[in-house]
Amino acid sequence: MPAAKFVKESTTIMTEMVMPNDTNTLGNLYGGNLMRMMDVAAAIAAQKHSNRIVVTASVDNVSFVNPIPLGHVVTLEAKITRAFNTSMEVIVEVYSENIPAGTKTKTNQAFLTFVAVDQSGRPIEIAEAIPETEKEKELFDHALQRRQLRLVLAGRMKPQDASELKTIFNA
Amino acid sequence: MPAAKFVKESTTIMTEMVMPNDTNTLGNLYGGNLMRMMDVAAAIAAQKHSNRIVVTASVDNVSFVNPIPLGHVVTLEAKITRAFNTSMEVIVEVYSENIPAGTKTKTNQAFLTFVAVDQSGRPIEIAEAIPETEKEKELFDHALQRRQLRLVLAGRMKPQDASELKTIFNA
Amino acid sequence: MPAAKFVKESTTIMTEMVMPNDTNTLGNLYGGNLMRMMDVAAAIAAQKHSNRIVVTASVDNVSFVNPIPLGHVVTLEAKITRAFNTSMEVIVEVYSENIPAGTKTKTNQAFLTFVAVDQSGRPIEIAEAIPETEKEKELFDHALQRRQLRLVLAGRMKPQDASELKTIFNA
Amino acid sequence: MPAAKFVKESTTIMTEMVMPNDTNTLGNLYGGNLMRMMDVAAAIAAQKHSNRIVVTASVDNVSFVNPIPLGHVVTLEAKITRAFNTSMEVIVEVYSENIPAGTKTKTNQAFLTFVAVDQSGRPIEIAEAIPETEKEKELFDHALQRRQLRLVLAGRMKPQDASELKTIFNA
Amino acid sequence: MPAAKFVKESTTIMTEMVMPNDTNTLGNLYGGNLMRMMDVAAAIAAQKHSNRIVVTASVDNVSFVNPIPLGHVVTLEAKITRAFNTSMEVIVEVYSENIPAGTKTKTNQAFLTFVAVDQSGRPIEIAEAIPETEKEKELFDHALQRRQLRLVLAGRMKPQDASELKTIFNA
Amino acid sequence: MPAAKFVKESTTIMTEMVMPNDTNTLGNLYGGNLMRMMDVAAAIAAQKHSNRIVVTASVDNVSFVNPIPLGHVVTLEAKITRAFNTSMEVIVEVYSENIPAGTKTKTNQAFLTFVAVDQSGRPIEIAEAIPETEKEKELFDHALQRRQLRLVLAGRMKPQDASELKTIFNA
Repeated sequence: MPAAKFVKESTTIMTEMVMPNDTNTLGNLYGGNLMRMMDVAAAIAAQKHSNRIVVTASVDNVSFVNPIPLGHVVTLEAKITRAFNTSMEVIVEVYSENIPAGTKTKTNQAFLTFVAVDQSGRPIEIAEAIPETEKEKELFDHALQRRQLRLVLAGRMKPQDASELKTIFNA
Repeated sequence: MPAAKFVKESTTIMTEMVMPNDTNTLGNLYGGNLMRMMDVAAAIAAQKHSNRIVVTASVDNVSFVNPIPLGHVVTLEAKITRAFNTSMEVIVEVYSENIPAGTKTKTNQAFLTFVAVDQSGRPIEIAEAIPETEKEKELFDHALQRRQLRLVLAGRMKPQDASELKTIFNA
Repeated sequence: MPAAKFVKESTTIMTEMVMPNDTNTLGNLYGGNLMRMMDVAAAIAAQKHSNRIVVTASVDNVSFVNPIPLGHVVTLEAKITRAFNTSMEVIVEVYSENIPAGTKTKTNQAFLTFVAVDQSGRPIEIAEAIPETEKEKELFDHALQRRQLRLVLAGRMKPQDASELKTIFNA
Repeated sequence: MPAAKFVKESTTIMTEMVMPNDTNTLGNLYGGNLMRMMDVAAAIAAQKHSNRIVVTASVDNVSFVNPIPLGHVVTLEAKITRAFNTSMEVIVEVYSENIPAGTKTKTNQAFLTFVAVDQSGRPIEIAEAIPETEKEKELFDHALQRRQLRLVLAGRMKPQDASELKTIFNA
Repeated sequence: MPAAKFVKESTTIMTEMVMPNDTNTLGNLYGGNLMRMMDVAAAIAAQKHSNRIVVTASVDNVSFVNPIPLGHVVTLEAKITRAFNTSMEVIVEVYSENIPAGTKTKTNQAFLTFVAVDQSGRPIEIAEAIPETEKEKELFDHALQRRQLRLVLAGRMKPQDASELKTIFNA
Repeated sequence: MPAAKFVKESTTIMTEMVMPNDTNTLGNLYGGNLMRMMDVAAAIAAQKHSNRIVVTASVDNVSFVNPIPLGHVVTLEAKITRAFNTSMEVIVEVYSENIPAGTKTKTNQAFLTFVAVDQSGRPIEIAEAIPETEKEKELFDHALQRRQLRLVLAGRMKPQDASELKTIFNA
């Protein structure tokens, strides 16, 4: 197994201008276009951690509360939260900025998972990720819970066996 | 409230060819590009049900198990599952087809929610959706459970209050 | 020669949203963009019939009577009409839908021909196409006439030898 | 009616590089992409003649005989052939060039018609087009024949009334 | 005049994946595509400094020494160097990263100038930029020299009057 | 060394329509998009002269004085100015045309340099370029001066050694 790396080493910042073709009839960014950007930013963060080719394994629930209008600048910040054997979870946080107006809002966040693969597409072992800040540690700790939810939603774990999740619902 | 409509009236079929620019280093469709296609197909289905402009409110967990290579044909089938007051849930099922080889696989599915809005972006009431087939009825029934999960994940409902979800974990 | 297939097995439905970049100064879809969509839909139908890689051989006359504005949904329905030795004719019918307004119009149709080829681009024999409905049979019957017109227009048949066409003009 | 203009004043040359995303599985330009380029080149020529916004009215039969591979340079030459009252016919000739190999082939040609419109999309009268060279004069003369064929194909003229066409088939 | 701002407040980081359509026959990023990315990154930095809509006024000489291959990650770092009355100079530094190989190279840098404008496109006064680090101060100081070179190259200053430049050539 | 060629043999004309996605908040073409077009036009001219694959080596200072609005037609004319051993300089002149209004303006020009390479990317000797017209000869003569400026700006020549440049500043 490769030597462990710090979470912050995977930090990836992506800045995009909302272009006419990215927007719907109301002049706001399509949800699907934002998801495409999130996937690219998160994949680069996963590459930085694993130094491998990576493929998207899953995208967790994403909510779209605040519309992002044409001409706004979108900033995506991606960082690994936890590495498992051959896969890793990445958090992407999205900010929308109306620069002339001087406003900046956090509009979305999502967790994506990636598998590191070799040239023929076979999963390959990756380094552990070491969290340092409080926020990084919290994201690291809750990663197991989100992982169980993914397994349950994919039908690969019975809800009754999801020990981390059960405690939440019975709290 | 507009007159109720059948689920099948919203059926939307989208066919796409996987183009070079949609693929990663391994020659497979990027997860993010597939999500963009899913969002467009689902939005059209939501428009068909509501006869309104619609905006994406959320995308549920999506898994990417089978890669979709360059040159394959992707078919997306979107259909409303249940309408709420001003929002609706849509299921999108994705099939990948290697036509010369004569193979077709279901590669993904996801649930997206949309809000119907007027020209100034304000939510507006929509028709009920009437399921007819067994599959449509089952999707209709479980829509409440998925809705509670979204509310819990968005921090807008306490896990302990998610009655539909609790029964699953305590079964 | 591969076993004959029914015309309906090649049915391909493609749904597209008209995006800003697809439109001209008047806010309507460029004719050229619609033709690109028609070519993709028809090529997939030809692939479905032949289970081969296909290349466009010709596109018949297309008229553009009704403009398709930004935000409309375009539905293309493609289906084989008749197979010849290594080539086949496909019909594409185009519908434009203003979903919030509840209107749907047939805006265009065209006949395209494709040649089935192997990996090195050499023409290869394909299955016959069996029409079933009245409309399919009529399209099948008139395919010969359209074929003669193509040969005449390409300078590969003398007008006087185009027996199927002559009858029309002398009727 | 605006003052007549020479055919050559509408000459439009467009040069394009074939990019990966424009090509099919065999590495050749999609027919549909070439048609999109032809429409843009021809529309600019029609604008130059009419000094108006123009909309595509029809595209005549196009054949695709020689494939145009990735990396080739495509040159499109568009020029008006004849102006009618509010519409005009444009010829587009397409050349494919493998510059390192020093080869250049004429791969396609097509006739497109455009209608000149005002800002609200209403047809508007245009200048006559005056042919000068032998080739321009021949294109001018045969324009009536092609026009009758379009009317017959669009079901707006009975074949028996297409006097210009009949002579060809009875020659 | 708005209150002066620190140079670092304009820092903009853009991360891009090199996609198939961005590359030439040798599989490397086209120079023109890199320049488009540099323009977007620099424009966002200029917006951040001025809190205004900005338009590109000029791009200085850019060299392309190291090719950037398909699949590499391109990172662009843009920052204002100096503000003048209504215009500002921005430096963009470009890094190419082969993440699986663990290599990162600085491939290019360029200076671009932007003018801040109001909604009708008229130039508008902007804040001064305060350099803090050694590198920022050096970039600030040499900005006058680069400005004279631009004026000379644009034919708006006689070479003999370019006092800052003359000293270099006579050193 | 291949036989010398005339400058005019490399002439390349590219015509483009300004599309919505190419424009900024003010509805004008982004500087970066124009630079991408200039690079493509100039690369084709360099290919035509050298009959080789070419890669961009540098782009000289470009100014953007007149905005080019949505719907305008952009014409780029590229032509080699002078060939060196394995590299060549190309001039691109850009015209913006509002065809309905009947106006045409020269908006920009730039000099780009390209290196001719073989399939593995190694520089390869090219033909000399022979200027014929007055303008071609003047561009040919001043090419050395521009070349020295590039070398100085790239830090590969000391300003004091730039004999061609010194004369200008000391005139």
